[in-house]
Amino acid sequence: MRLYHDSRAPNPRRVRMFLAEKGLTSAVELVEVSINARAHQTPEHLARHPLGLVPVLELDDGRHLTESVAICRYIDELHPEPQLFGTDAWSRAKVEEWNRHAELELLIPVAQVFRNSHAFWQGRIRQAPDFADIMRELLADRLTWLDRELADRRFLAGDAFSIADITALCALDFGKVSNIRLGDATPNVKRWHAEVAGRPSAKA
Amino acid sequence: MRLYHDSRAPNPRRVRMFLAEKGLTSAVELVEVSINARAHQTPEHLARHPLGLVPVLELDDGRHLTESVAICRYIDELHPEPQLFGTDAWSRAKVEEWNRHAELELLIPVAQVFRNSHAFWQGRIRQAPDFADIMRELLADRLTWLDRELADRRFLAGDAFSIADITALCALDFGKVSNIRLGDATPNVKRWHAEVAGRPSAKA
Repeated sequence: MRLYHDSRAPNPRRVRMFLAEKGLTSAVELVEVSINARAHQTPEHLARHPLGLVPVLELDDGRHLTESVAICRYIDELHPEPQLFGTDAWSRAKVEEWNRHAELELLIPVAQVFRNSHAFWQGRIRQAPDFADIMRELLADRLTWLDRELADRRFLAGDAFSIADITALCALDFGKVSNIRLGDATPNVKRWHAEVAGRPSAKA
Repeated sequence: MRLYHDSRAPNPRRVRMFLAEKGLTSAVELVEVSINARAHQTPEHLARHPLGLVPVLELDDGRHLTESVAICRYIDELHPEPQLFGTDAWSRAKVEEWNRHAELELLIPVAQVFRNSHAFWQGRIRQAPDFADIMRELLADRLTWLDRELADRRFLAGDAFSIADITALCALDFGKVSNIRLGDATPNVKRWHAEVAGRPSAKA
């Protein structure tokens, strides 16, 4: 299998980290599709994904899967251990709840700050700086919320590490490029971040 | 079980439609939490979901599940038939891919047009009309893309109806309030919409 990715973008990192947690890093060939070099807009990549997004998983028979969580779920079907999507009906529901909270409340706002205010995108896309400001305000609120949630448990979805922690780590780390940083006001998020960032998979 | 919902919001509709497809409409008590009346910001609702969002599923033992797709997955665990998340590893991956495409490329842009330009939110939240315009442009592009995708298959994820169709229907129907409409330029989307909107569950 091949994973078409950008080594600096947050969604491909989610998949690389998931693969590393599964012990599958060497089982998947990584192929760089540099957004900075506009490689995602070439005919070759658009044939894999008409929207020109990354990551894309390519199976050995040529089929493509074009979305980060779908790729993680497919890998999870082939390699169920260690379990990163929960272990029973309720824990699977809680992991899904928290993976979606991490995406909708953290990753998407962080990505929208980047798209709508960062110099990287100037001249490449139309930006709305006002919306970036709104998302910065939202993120401050969401970090306060997350800090309360993490006051009495180790990981986002409970006592077990899950894909929700991968999503949240990739979101908050990607925030650094837009100067979104964890401060002393959110000690539980900092404690959680230090633990998750210290896992070997975080370097994937 | 109880579902706290707003009868006009798109995310609760996803869950109601999912329940209807499972034949479970009468098994879940619906409790209205009117966003228009700000009932989502009351202490009672914030105790269910600290972010004040809907839908929230409440189990008979008082536990809460606070996110639309997590609720659907939990219901699916309890009532697997009919299968709305796919039937094998690959089809489950394709349903997840398309449910996420429907959310990221249709529902979130539609919701952002509404939040950032509609009179409903004036004076309630800070709006960024420029971002609404950007999302309108994106949606025009995404509908063209979706039309090509639906040229040679019946439903979003393949030949079988799935949760991805529910998400896309709720997204496009919610677009009407912001004057986002399907035109003659996307005949395959119109054909698909007519079929899915004609299912009894669409009235849930």
